[in-house]
Amino acid sequence: MEGFITMDHGSGGKKTAALIDELIVPLFRNEALAALGDGAVLPGGGTLVFSTDSFVVTPLFFPGGDIGKLSVCGTVNDLAMAGGIPRYLSLSIIIEDGFPLGDLERVLSSAARAAAECGVSVVTGDTKVVERGHCDGLFINTAGIGTLACPGLSSSSIRPGDRVILSGTAGDHGTAILLSRSPELLEGTLSSDCAPLHRAAADLYSLGPALRVLRDPTRGGVATALNEFTEEKPFSLVLEEASIPVDPGVRTACDLLGLDPLYAANEGKLLAVVAPEAAESALQILRSHPACCRAAVIGTAESDHAGRVILRTRTGGSRILQRLSGAQYPRIC
Amino acid sequence: MEGFITMDHGSGGKKTAALIDELIVPLFRNEALAALGDGAVLPGGGTLVFSTDSFVVTPLFFPGGDIGKLSVCGTVNDLAMAGGIPRYLSLSIIIEDGFPLGDLERVLSSAARAAAECGVSVVTGDTKVVERGHCDGLFINTAGIGTLACPGLSSSSIRPGDRVILSGTAGDHGTAILLSRSPELLEGTLSSDCAPLHRAAADLYSLGPALRVLRDPTRGGVATALNEFTEEKPFSLVLEEASIPVDPGVRTACDLLGLDPLYAANEGKLLAVVAPEAAESALQILRSHPACCRAAVIGTAESDHAGRVILRTRTGGSRILQRLSGAQYPRIC
Repeated sequence: MEGFITMDHGSGGKKTAALIDELIVPLFRNEALAALGDGAVLPGGGTLVFSTDSFVVTPLFFPGGDIGKLSVCGTVNDLAMAGGIPRYLSLSIIIEDGFPLGDLERVLSSAARAAAECGVSVVTGDTKVVERGHCDGLFINTAGIGTLACPGLSSSSIRPGDRVILSGTAGDHGTAILLSRSPELLEGTLSSDCAPLHRAAADLYSLGPALRVLRDPTRGGVATALNEFTEEKPFSLVLEEASIPVDPGVRTACDLLGLDPLYAANEGKLLAVVAPEAAESALQILRSHPACCRAAVIGTAESDHAGRVILRTRTGGSRILQRLSGAQYPRIC
Repeated sequence: MEGFITMDHGSGGKKTAALIDELIVPLFRNEALAALGDGAVLPGGGTLVFSTDSFVVTPLFFPGGDIGKLSVCGTVNDLAMAGGIPRYLSLSIIIEDGFPLGDLERVLSSAARAAAECGVSVVTGDTKVVERGHCDGLFINTAGIGTLACPGLSSSSIRPGDRVILSGTAGDHGTAILLSRSPELLEGTLSSDCAPLHRAAADLYSLGPALRVLRDPTRGGVATALNEFTEEKPFSLVLEEASIPVDPGVRTACDLLGLDPLYAANEGKLLAVVAPEAAESALQILRSHPACCRAAVIGTAESDHAGRVILRTRTGGSRILQRLSGAQYPRIC
């Protein structure tokens, strides 16, 4: 394999997908990995869900959260999206020589608070230190184990007519992180949505087979996550732009920065695809959770234009939403 | 908490222990974490073992292995030391912008080969990219799940008279890594012992309660791992220097570099403490595995000098072996 890793490979978009599909999945081939869900349902028995994420967000502290809270919520959410009730986490840190112990304490206290709130135990961990200039302050990896409560969640179950639900406003986390790097812009007006979603997800499991699939649209945003659902599938997902909740501050900031909230990361939102008859129940379930109070149906699965994600715009036009290409938002998680 | 992280906090020695004991364990308090084993036996049911390690070794490729093989063997060994049969791994990479794709392919191919040899499946993962100068080429985290085959392994079970067994020569990995950074010294003569130990460990489980505890002496080496056994315990571990196998090349290199092989890391060796009547069986079991063919009884548990690790030297003297203090060997794993 020739060439070099670029920031694009970490975007969560096209080049990340290519790296995973062309290098990683063939090397480690097994069904659980190839499913490429947010977490893996362990084969044989099939009662456990396993997931991992490394967090390299910069800055470490941002409005609405920090790398500690994010590293717990991120893995808790991945387990929940895979149908699991989160139980146990590992937490592994790589720290740069010279990092302030007080900041480490703040980050780990925040992670501990988030774990307690989520009802998960951090049962194992690891600590490494590297020389100055050899990492960027602090990186955290968490891995998580959950008990499988909702087997069979898969984008393969989506049928034309199904509804796409987003649990709240799009793009809050990515936009807040970018703004926090440019404090001269709108300082303090936007906040990350970083939050655990496992309780909302667990309530959705009660929908049974009418719940087709769940995903938390992190890197690459709503547009990229939905493209993962439609890729090589016999359906399209057609979104109504007017139905997609976007915080006015996020919209203004995205306009200023030349960004699209549909490609900006979320850390406290989920996408659910449900059978049409379950859409109203799903909305009620979600809206009973504070983090999901602005849940909305944002689109429908259709048989035309199979494999595509299409946006019907406010002005009556329509355009294809591709996966994120390029590293539009480096290090937002 | 005041002050700053230093390289010492990553040594695996005293300051690493202090950071874990004073900051991390109190924050996340639960029994599984507080046991501070190589892996955690999950509470409630108690049929699973969970472990994680981040790998920041430099150089990425070294005689006898590379960061890919190391990251699989390291977690496989941690699970085995905790009494688990390794089953599933997660693998998460943090890559520096500009890293050669060919090197990534070599590393991941090596990890995939090691996983296949160990009979474990890499079922989930994550890929992050950071800007040039914000990490050092490639860091890998693995987490692993094993099924508990040997419950109750604990240094609390050690009794006076028990024998300490080391599965082979001490200090090969750490010394090989240090030499590989100074190729003008003895280039090519030493090789890391990086190897999976789960099969040897599983055979030792057949000893039943006569097998008290297992540990792979990685960072901080044999001396530090044994100190973890004796800390606040009513026994000492007394080692016979003449019985401790050390490769002649490692001894020469350590003499040259002013190092002690008992504090140098191992990545393919285990320490087992066994009841005296089981010592001969344990040696036979270990020696049937190529990676453990030089297994030897290196010491005995005694009731005098409780809490200490003591070395009886070749010249008839004796000295206390403390935990590693300071960052004698940065980034060897």
